[in-house]
Amino acid sequence: MKIEILAVGSELLSPFFLDTNSLFLTRRLNDLGLDVSLKTIIGDDHDDLLNGIRNALPRAGLLLIMGGLGPTSDDITRDACAEALGKKLLFDQNLIQGIEERFRRRGKDMPASNRKQAFIIEGAEVLVNKNGTAPGQWIVHGGTRIALLPGPPNELVPMFEECVWPKLEGLRRGVTTRRTLHITGMTESEVENHISDLYPKTPESRLTILSSPGQIELHLSAFSKTPGDAASTGIEALTIEIKRRLGDAVFSSTGEDLETVVGRLLGERQKTLATAESCTGGLLAGRITSVSGSSKYFREGFITYADAAKNARLGVPQDMLAAHGAVSREVAGAMASGVREKTGAYFGLAVTGIAGPSGGTPEKPIGLVYTALSREGGVDVQKSVFLGKRNQVRFQATQKALDMLRRVLVETRPK
Amino acid sequence: MKIEILAVGSELLSPFFLDTNSLFLTRRLNDLGLDVSLKTIIGDDHDDLLNGIRNALPRAGLLLIMGGLGPTSDDITRDACAEALGKKLLFDQNLIQGIEERFRRRGKDMPASNRKQAFIIEGAEVLVNKNGTAPGQWIVHGGTRIALLPGPPNELVPMFEECVWPKLEGLRRGVTTRRTLHITGMTESEVENHISDLYPKTPESRLTILSSPGQIELHLSAFSKTPGDAASTGIEALTIEIKRRLGDAVFSSTGEDLETVVGRLLGERQKTLATAESCTGGLLAGRITSVSGSSKYFREGFITYADAAKNARLGVPQDMLAAHGAVSREVAGAMASGVREKTGAYFGLAVTGIAGPSGGTPEKPIGLVYTALSREGGVDVQKSVFLGKRNQVRFQATQKALDMLRRVLVETRPK
Repeated sequence: MKIEILAVGSELLSPFFLDTNSLFLTRRLNDLGLDVSLKTIIGDDHDDLLNGIRNALPRAGLLLIMGGLGPTSDDITRDACAEALGKKLLFDQNLIQGIEERFRRRGKDMPASNRKQAFIIEGAEVLVNKNGTAPGQWIVHGGTRIALLPGPPNELVPMFEECVWPKLEGLRRGVTTRRTLHITGMTESEVENHISDLYPKTPESRLTILSSPGQIELHLSAFSKTPGDAASTGIEALTIEIKRRLGDAVFSSTGEDLETVVGRLLGERQKTLATAESCTGGLLAGRITSVSGSSKYFREGFITYADAAKNARLGVPQDMLAAHGAVSREVAGAMASGVREKTGAYFGLAVTGIAGPSGGTPEKPIGLVYTALSREGGVDVQKSVFLGKRNQVRFQATQKALDMLRRVLVETRPK
Repeated sequence: MKIEILAVGSELLSPFFLDTNSLFLTRRLNDLGLDVSLKTIIGDDHDDLLNGIRNALPRAGLLLIMGGLGPTSDDITRDACAEALGKKLLFDQNLIQGIEERFRRRGKDMPASNRKQAFIIEGAEVLVNKNGTAPGQWIVHGGTRIALLPGPPNELVPMFEECVWPKLEGLRRGVTTRRTLHITGMTESEVENHISDLYPKTPESRLTILSSPGQIELHLSAFSKTPGDAASTGIEALTIEIKRRLGDAVFSSTGEDLETVVGRLLGERQKTLATAESCTGGLLAGRITSVSGSSKYFREGFITYADAAKNARLGVPQDMLAAHGAVSREVAGAMASGVREKTGAYFGLAVTGIAGPSGGTPEKPIGLVYTALSREGGVDVQKSVFLGKRNQVRFQATQKALDMLRRVLVETRPK
């Protein structure tokens, strides 16, 4: 059965907006073992929309049309769909009362233009919109099931889940099992080299690699007729094998980001943390404190951008700064040790580097970053050279620092 | 003339990827006064692609097809397009030499699969790909101009600019003038209330509002037959009128973000800055230091997450913390004054608040944020209550703090 998505709205043909609803719809259809064959994006143009629907009808077993159900003259989806199906639009007394009531609750009269939202295609079922005035519609026409859905995601998502999903259960081909692995400290090609022989060879199992500077995500999914059949057990085995091969470069297999993983580990081990940053300028602490509850383990941070601050706040010796420069193994280590001593935190984590686009030299190129972790008994410093623009270098530096801490934490016994 | 974009690739029918190339293409077409009528997204399926092209041919004066030009068996755009046009694919000796040479330069032999990239549709012109092995093609078929373009943006964009753009110049209807206004400190509906009577009433002029927590962008564009005609002068007058009505809530009319504007003003006025952050946890300093050259004016920052740090680093009195709590007008002011005194910076900028999702009380709800700016002669503290999730509250808090500084800086005489 072919499934098509038709997104309506001239804004989706501008340079500013993409149809993001279809990512959600695709994910939910995939859950049923169903794939999308075609997506069409059409403006608020009656003829284009009429032709789009007419072309899709003979092909599609399921046609999801979204957008253009509002009250203004631009909103033509109801009309065009009725015309494409050769059906009348009927006024629904219950619907208009509901829409009027919605306005009344907010102390307003319904504008006359909203009246058009109470027209339903002959033979269609109303899909209730709890979050807006535009009702959806469900029509079966020949071999095609058609859903008309509102465009705003906060209206579309609950309407799909509550009204459309139960109707699609009958089309379910089985169950989809998903796993997501998050990886850092390897390049995309390193990951591919390790696992290329494991790529799924059947259409039931899929592996998608999403790569960005400092992080790689592997999205695995398996569709199986019944829970526990070969495909779903296969995906478990595949996940285990990938984790075995990539080792501790895999920091999450549940979708957690690195700051959440580090935060959980710090919490479980009841250890505290303080940070000292130069080139990352606060982004490392910003990521750590983006986790709700981080005040339990994060004490404080220093952004020692100027050399004078590195000396005054963290006790980095002036002669060390003069001899090695602010971007050096020695200074990174002294920043980490200094922030730990100054704050009494269990861990001191520091970053210094050259984020660019200027400031590089042949000896110290743009992208050179030292990250350092201080704890009882010593300080570990690592050198990296990151590629990319200023903020990509900065993100990768925070990722490297968090990952150093993670690797130490996983080997620390929980309390 | 109808213009259609056809994006090819099964990954674009997965829950992970959207066709972002079309935003770029649409923007460039709009520059010529041309609009896109339809976008179609098709998987790596021969029949679907063949039908997609066949359907578009009688409608479209310009058809931009992208993706599916690679060397693997999935890449079927060349074949499907030739079949749709009823043309042969011809092997191009020059092309294969170029592709082989590209591999040779990287010290590799060309895999046999790349040979298919040297086939050109009969009558087509080759579009040179400087950044990959997939050549593009340009064919005029009946009334339809067709471009086949590679999917990767780093290949598509330069090929479009160098090879396709000159061919489209003949379709140019005039010139497009654009203006972008960035606004903070007003809600979307406040902005709309101020300017709703100014919305352009002709299709030549357009106004798009992009709203996100803490920032609103107004994108204005005017298409005019000749530079300086009514539409382009109209957009200048409209920009001036909107700026007059919205006043200093408009922080940029050149596309600069707020940290860049503040950085430029600090540089011009030769003033230095230090920050003290609680709920934003380093994000304020992270934004300030995202600007290249910020070391000229940004001294250092303190992330005083714990109360003890507020006292030890910034001199916030313990009894003030006990009496008013860390999230209070008094503590915000003391943080700003404290960081200024401690560092000797000209400005001290501070944030304290409740980012959520927990920690709110009836007196101090989630989203309550105090921002404070200290300078010679006194400290100004402002109270805000921001809506949204933890990181939305945090972003809005940094935006408010930067905006306080901006408003003071614009009234400070440049050196």
